Amino acid sequence: MTRTRTKPAAPPAPPAAPRAYRRLSVEERRAQLLDAALTLFAHHAPEDVSLDHVAEAAGVSRPLVYRYFPGGKQQLYEAALRSAADELRHCFAEPQTGPLTLRLSRALDRYLAFVDEHDTGFSALLHGGSVVETSRTTATVDGIRRAAADQILLHLAVPEPGPRLRMMVRTWITAVEAASLIWIDEGKQPAVEELRDWLLDQFIALLTATAASDPQTAAAARRALALESGDGPAGRLARRVIPVVSEAAHLL
Amino acid sequence: MTRTRTKPAAPPAPPAAPRAYRRLSVEERRAQLLDAALTLFAHHAPEDVSLDHVAEAAGVSRPLVYRYFPGGKQQLYEAALRSAADELRHCFAEPQTGPLTLRLSRALDRYLAFVDEHDTGFSALLHGGSVVETSRTTATVDGIRRAAADQILLHLAVPEPGPRLRMMVRTWITAVEAASLIWIDEGKQPAVEELRDWLLDQFIALLTATAASDPQTAAAARRALALESGDGPAGRLARRVIPVVSEAAHLL
Repeated sequence: MTRTRTKPAAPPAPPAAPRAYRRLSVEERRAQLLDAALTLFAHHAPEDVSLDHVAEAAGVSRPLVYRYFPGGKQQLYEAALRSAADELRHCFAEPQTGPLTLRLSRALDRYLAFVDEHDTGFSALLHGGSVVETSRTTATVDGIRRAAADQILLHLAVPEPGPRLRMMVRTWITAVEAASLIWIDEGKQPAVEELRDWLLDQFIALLTATAASDPQTAAAARRALALESGDGPAGRLARRVIPVVSEAAHLL
Repeated sequence: MTRTRTKPAAPPAPPAAPRAYRRLSVEERRAQLLDAALTLFAHHAPEDVSLDHVAEAAGVSRPLVYRYFPGGKQQLYEAALRSAADELRHCFAEPQTGPLTLRLSRALDRYLAFVDEHDTGFSALLHGGSVVETSRTTATVDGIRRAAADQILLHLAVPEPGPRLRMMVRTWITAVEAASLIWIDEGKQPAVEELRDWLLDQFIALLTATAASDPQTAAAARRALALESGDGPAGRLARRVIPVVSEAAHLL
């Protein structure tokens, strides 16, 4: 925010130069207020955030906040949520090269960093029953889930995923959310890398178990496993699972 | 309800016989209203249920409904939800004998029958953003999840479950919920037995994958697998997984 308040040394004036101390444009001001709101909603339950807090954090007056967000806190919350949703969608973007688990691992790192950064707001939103929860906020959250599922299906390289594979992917996404909430509740234990590795293990396990009953998932799992390496997540999981299941030869 | 309206042939009067046409006691009337509300809330979104509907379904007047539930629809909804929660808790009860997957299978059958019977209300409640959602309804739902987790930990026979095992169980419960919602959304496809078997496969897969990184879970998984038989869910899964993973020998 210093950018908008300190007066920089005047440069040689180009044609139509902006004033050295310039007012924020409508878009810039909106972005600044949203940014302040997002930070507040990230670290506090929505019922503990007031428009006064937003105005104070942005260094503006309360009426100015109302001018930009006449719907008050609810409107600010929903706008902040949409902005967070855009940020999350960027977390999922990942080039389609290399072993699947490494792509997922990088996306999970970004997702969990987002969860870490927005902990209180993330919990308040997903625990439900929040004062600002509406069908619109629910739709935004569902949109994020769909975007995540679409990305994973893209990486599984299945052009027309059937119901079982889609159900598996959506189920895993819910598991990631649930684990993130528990992780926040438990004071962010275990270390985030451990949580990420366990979520990756879960993905491999669910993919493999679903492959057992769905031919399309089986084909996708075979393609994915062929790209994995022994020192990657799938290799590590395979070697650690063997001692556990080796005693269960009576099942075969 | 015929019980309360038709006049049965008078039996030989025992001492202090009830009147042939007797009024419902306060508790009976309350139970009858709750029952009517639960049926309505099971098959309609809460915003589509009115006190008039409840009164009509119970064959009583609207003022009578208000006498029992002065808080109106919200109070009726919360009471119906608590009653449904009790019913669900009974679904989870299962003797601690035999293979774990068969115990889980029976509990899942009862749970999925409940989901099938309460489809619309179940979706409305868990999709969030509902008009009747409050911190109390959220707490009731969380209570059911905790009860389910406690039951599973009991069957895993781990007296002091650590964070990883608890997280695994809670994650699976969330996956069951998510899969149930998707199942309802997709017109109850696949057949409920197929969904149940897939959820069981997921449980075995998650338990095994978590066993790979958590000694306590590994011990529980070994104990559980020892009780499984080749023609049960774990045996079927093991035999179907082998062809998928057998091509991944490069990971070992």
